[in-house]
Amino acid sequence: RYGLAEKEDQVGVVTGLAWTSVGGELLSIEALRLPGKGRMKTTGKLGDVMKESIDAASSFVRSISPELGVKPPKFEAVDIHVHVPEGATPKDGPSAGVAMVTSIVSVLTGIPVRKDVAMTGEVTLRGNVLPIGGLKEKLLAALRGGIKTVLIPEENAKDLAEIPDNVKEGLRIVPVAHVREVLREALVRMPDPVEWDEAAEEAAAAARRLERDNTPTATAH
Amino acid sequence: RYGLAEKEDQVGVVTGLAWTSVGGELLSIEALRLPGKGRMKTTGKLGDVMKESIDAASSFVRSISPELGVKPPKFEAVDIHVHVPEGATPKDGPSAGVAMVTSIVSVLTGIPVRKDVAMTGEVTLRGNVLPIGGLKEKLLAALRGGIKTVLIPEENAKDLAEIPDNVKEGLRIVPVAHVREVLREALVRMPDPVEWDEAAEEAAAAARRLERDNTPTATAH
Amino acid sequence: RYGLAEKEDQVGVVTGLAWTSVGGELLSIEALRLPGKGRMKTTGKLGDVMKESIDAASSFVRSISPELGVKPPKFEAVDIHVHVPEGATPKDGPSAGVAMVTSIVSVLTGIPVRKDVAMTGEVTLRGNVLPIGGLKEKLLAALRGGIKTVLIPEENAKDLAEIPDNVKEGLRIVPVAHVREVLREALVRMPDPVEWDEAAEEAAAAARRLERDNTPTATAH
Amino acid sequence: RYGLAEKEDQVGVVTGLAWTSVGGELLSIEALRLPGKGRMKTTGKLGDVMKESIDAASSFVRSISPELGVKPPKFEAVDIHVHVPEGATPKDGPSAGVAMVTSIVSVLTGIPVRKDVAMTGEVTLRGNVLPIGGLKEKLLAALRGGIKTVLIPEENAKDLAEIPDNVKEGLRIVPVAHVREVLREALVRMPDPVEWDEAAEEAAAAARRLERDNTPTATAH
Amino acid sequence: RYGLAEKEDQVGVVTGLAWTSVGGELLSIEALRLPGKGRMKTTGKLGDVMKESIDAASSFVRSISPELGVKPPKFEAVDIHVHVPEGATPKDGPSAGVAMVTSIVSVLTGIPVRKDVAMTGEVTLRGNVLPIGGLKEKLLAALRGGIKTVLIPEENAKDLAEIPDNVKEGLRIVPVAHVREVLREALVRMPDPVEWDEAAEEAAAAARRLERDNTPTATAH
Amino acid sequence: RYGLAEKEDQVGVVTGLAWTSVGGELLSIEALRLPGKGRMKTTGKLGDVMKESIDAASSFVRSISPELGVKPPKFEAVDIHVHVPEGATPKDGPSAGVAMVTSIVSVLTGIPVRKDVAMTGEVTLRGNVLPIGGLKEKLLAALRGGIKTVLIPEENAKDLAEIPDNVKEGLRIVPVAHVREVLREALVRMPDPVEWDEAAEEAAAAARRLERDNTPTATAH
Ligand SMILES: [Ca+2]
Ligand SMILES: [Ca+2]
Ligand SMILES: [Ca+2]
Ligand SMILES: [Ca+2]
Ligand SMILES: [Ca+2]
Ligand SMILES: [Ca+2]
Ligand SMILES: [Ca+2]
Ligand SMILES: [Ca+2]
Ligand SMILES: [Ca+2]
Ligand SMILES: [Ca+2]
Ligand SMILES: [Ca+2]
Ligand SMILES: [Ca+2]
Repeated sequence: RYGLAEKEDQVGVVTGLAWTSVGGELLSIEALRLPGKGRMKTTGKLGDVMKESIDAASSFVRSISPELGVKPPKFEAVDIHVHVPEGATPKDGPSAGVAMVTSIVSVLTGIPVRKDVAMTGEVTLRGNVLPIGGLKEKLLAALRGGIKTVLIPEENAKDLAEIPDNVKEGLRIVPVAHVREVLREALVRMPDPVEWDEAAEEAAAAARRLERDNTPTATAH
Repeated sequence: RYGLAEKEDQVGVVTGLAWTSVGGELLSIEALRLPGKGRMKTTGKLGDVMKESIDAASSFVRSISPELGVKPPKFEAVDIHVHVPEGATPKDGPSAGVAMVTSIVSVLTGIPVRKDVAMTGEVTLRGNVLPIGGLKEKLLAALRGGIKTVLIPEENAKDLAEIPDNVKEGLRIVPVAHVREVLREALVRMPDPVEWDEAAEEAAAAARRLERDNTPTATAH
Repeated sequence: RYGLAEKEDQVGVVTGLAWTSVGGELLSIEALRLPGKGRMKTTGKLGDVMKESIDAASSFVRSISPELGVKPPKFEAVDIHVHVPEGATPKDGPSAGVAMVTSIVSVLTGIPVRKDVAMTGEVTLRGNVLPIGGLKEKLLAALRGGIKTVLIPEENAKDLAEIPDNVKEGLRIVPVAHVREVLREALVRMPDPVEWDEAAEEAAAAARRLERDNTPTATAH
Repeated sequence: RYGLAEKEDQVGVVTGLAWTSVGGELLSIEALRLPGKGRMKTTGKLGDVMKESIDAASSFVRSISPELGVKPPKFEAVDIHVHVPEGATPKDGPSAGVAMVTSIVSVLTGIPVRKDVAMTGEVTLRGNVLPIGGLKEKLLAALRGGIKTVLIPEENAKDLAEIPDNVKEGLRIVPVAHVREVLREALVRMPDPVEWDEAAEEAAAAARRLERDNTPTATAH
Repeated sequence: RYGLAEKEDQVGVVTGLAWTSVGGELLSIEALRLPGKGRMKTTGKLGDVMKESIDAASSFVRSISPELGVKPPKFEAVDIHVHVPEGATPKDGPSAGVAMVTSIVSVLTGIPVRKDVAMTGEVTLRGNVLPIGGLKEKLLAALRGGIKTVLIPEENAKDLAEIPDNVKEGLRIVPVAHVREVLREALVRMPDPVEWDEAAEEAAAAARRLERDNTPTATAH
Repeated sequence: RYGLAEKEDQVGVVTGLAWTSVGGELLSIEALRLPGKGRMKTTGKLGDVMKESIDAASSFVRSISPELGVKPPKFEAVDIHVHVPEGATPKDGPSAGVAMVTSIVSVLTGIPVRKDVAMTGEVTLRGNVLPIGGLKEKLLAALRGGIKTVLIPEENAKDLAEIPDNVKEGLRIVPVAHVREVLREALVRMPDPVEWDEAAEEAAAAARRLERDNTPTATAH
């Protein structure tokens, strides 16, 4: 089943697209959320650039977490493990960035990812989507793998002219400029935002600390 | 005795199957649970891919721990040591993943592993079993070593056509698609699940912390 | 859009100027502030010298933080992530120092950076700006990218004689000797200083600790 | 005196047997117990495999500690330092495993090791003894060094046929299958076990914590 | 301005002297003191020997801190960052040791360093000054850079015979045997010592701890 | 003055003896004690074997600390820095072990080391002194450097036959088998032991903890 679209919508499982010397390939990206202390673990023979793209994805998600319905302190109470099977195949590059963001958002919110969506694109710390290479090979792999919708960077839309017609007819290809568009296409539903006023929360925490320090621990007479 | 099936059912001791340039080999995988702080130690001249497969196995087991009768906070109170003798022989690759999961589950639950079962297969973070190489050599090693049952990845079932009849007659070969099937075959009994409502547990812990902070430590008059 | 000036003034996003064997290039530098513990994370395939220039920028900013309206304890409550896309391109050198300082000041103060300003220059721990190489190529890249104002080290002003007239006419070029001049040009407004008397703050904190230790936790009769 | 049997029974000092390109050699292994925090330090130009054999020895000893009269929390209150002189000579391999177990048990229990016993054998996490190479050279070194008793892995007993008669007559050679047999031969006396019911201890500790949290710190009226 | 003497007396900024294959050079060494936890950060492409010379300088300064008017606990409340621009130029060697000591003392005491003094010399943990190489090239660089006074190791005084007369006439050259002489020449004024009786301080701290532990937290009737 | 005996008896400064391809050399070893947390820092371009010899020296000293008048908890309250000038010269090997022990004992006890004593010898974790190489070159360096007494390993005494008579007449050469003999020769006086009953201290500490936990923090009526 490896190299094919997932069989059901799952939390934390996202289909990326890789480009190797022998063509394109579906890349299954898995994230798990565990009770923890804010640590990020990555496995799957990942190169340094792919690991950095996971770091950037993670910081971006933390920076918009109230918009995703996740209060920032939640991040200090969980560990996230991102794994990219097959474990013996080296993987690298920044183009799985949008898939990393999507899998992290999915495990944090508990919202499943659509099984028939694949995606490719580098992300910046602001969630902007940067262009990638190997578009043709990646689209062919998506078609072969039974994918219905492929999200590509807007800056790669101009490269669609060179893609064979049968590929463009067999897939719904959606150019995206920001990760928010990715999430709207890939998650089965969008999360509800929570209110979070950083300055107010900090002030409240400081006030609680101060009160505790100043209260005599017992006043008896 | 090395290279033969274990003599008795033991907690934490699992028989994997390795594939080297000179043929297949039984691989004894041992895990110990010690009082600790949630650390994982690995020894036995393991390569990076095998170490990552232990990390993935560990995260998967943590993610399903209530189903195994283990409450998540237990993980913060134990260290687990996984060792693969013989210590001077380099070992690598992801195909011992199912054996790693089984040995970790066995030490956490205290349930012994059947001595006459061997297994091979990569695992994903969701517990899915991915195909492996060297099936023929691994099955020959299992037969030579006195193994009765061999668990192989479902996606390798198609390769059984090329396996000599005497091997297939001497072994019970069980294709598996998920680690849950592995545990049912390998453990002498299945653990009883515990209830664990993560959200409720977190809320209760937060409430206890709050009460402690707000209670004046003595109210005397 | 990569290689062009930003479309709007943003917090934490600064345009630097890189010099490679094939010419100059705009370099987008992004910083994010996250709730945290005073950690600095850097991504984007950065070489050791560029990482050190971020360390130096960070220490300089901390050393003048009251002047920027930021109380020093704030630094222990946030993490800062600096990322330089594109993630697969190696980057190195000290000349993005002034851009690093500017992006860190922007995320700490929440004041946006002017989108049509680019800058280049090494910084010292005192905020002095040291000269850089590749001035001509960097200015050409700024012009191509739609930049209006370029901040260059004062010690490079003598090199302007060799720059083509059309470049000097198309850009406002501002030589700077200290990072304070950079901030005045690059931020949309200057922050208001806060008072911070280090010795007094330390004494007050010590007094609070002492009182807590010496107060009998209950005085009862 | 180096290369000869020890002059008296000592706590933590064990004689192993090494095999080099120029023959066998006595290997003096020293362990010290210090007040500490559960750390293990190793010195003596040890290779990775020998360091891992010390890790495995340490975990095995912790796993059977009540049987050795040592309560598990003791391990968190001590550091153990294992040193193998001569410090300039590189050493590696797993065959000193039984000697490592013996020296760790000796320093933990304070029971001296017999000065005229030497030993060789890899150990597993369950304390099983695995076969080693260089048996003949090691036995010759033991004889030369004034050793009386040599403990060898049971699986090496078949190799005794090739050992010269004068060696077999000059030494008492004891094949061992498990570390428990090693300890009975090597320690001057066996430790008395302590009772330790892990589940009960954990429950008691949890109860103490709960009571402390729930007791109002003062009940006054 | 790089390569010239500083324009004003500054806290933490010291002029060292480097010797490269193409001659001598002024080396600007900058230290900053930040609120912190006793950490030392170093940047500027420094080799291991130069980093170790900063470590040694730091330990020496801590060991004499009462003599400098700095109470030892102060060190646990500050971080020190030492940077040597230009960030892209590799630097190494122990001969900046006296400059490192001087910049650390200057930031700890807040006393500026004279702008027209340069210095070279390795330091030991006791503050003794050891000889250096490249004396002639270093003195020439000092003269070119507008330096007035150069501090050199006493053991290099014998090498002054080979220095051209115009150099010796243009500079005040002061041989020094110990860092105390360096500080007297380089700081604009000497710090006032504080009293610090280590044993008494330790005993007082222990007494405070004991009293707190033994006092019933409330005795009420 | 480098390469000559020290000018006065100092705390923590010990003269070792090195052997290089161009002959023997005096090696000045310096230790400092700083308020701290039990950390050991080493500088001076030391190889791994020399660093390990410092680790072994440190553990040995801790293991006999009551005999030296130092209570074990003292080690958790100090950092020790061992430096071997000249910082640019690589140094390695285990033969400075006895000098390392001596300098650590000197800084812990505050007892100076005799300035006219030099020493060479590897040490084990039990303080036994193992033989070294280059005896002749080391003795010649000691004579040249104005040393009066040289401590050598007892196992090297047999090599004295090959040493020229003028060397043996110019030096008092003392063979030593254990570090206790080294300390008696090298320190200006021996420390007074303190009593330290490890089991009793542990029990008392546990009792204090228990009492604190069980005492209601206030009983008021
Ligand atoms: Ca594949
Ligand atoms: Ca991809
Ligand atoms: Ca084998
Ligand atoms: Ca396997
Ligand atoms: Ca580009
Ligand atoms: Ca730049
Ligand atoms: Ca030897
Ligand atoms: Ca051995
Ligand atoms: Ca220069
Ligand atoms: Ca210098
Ligand atoms: Ca020398
Ligand atoms: Ca020596």
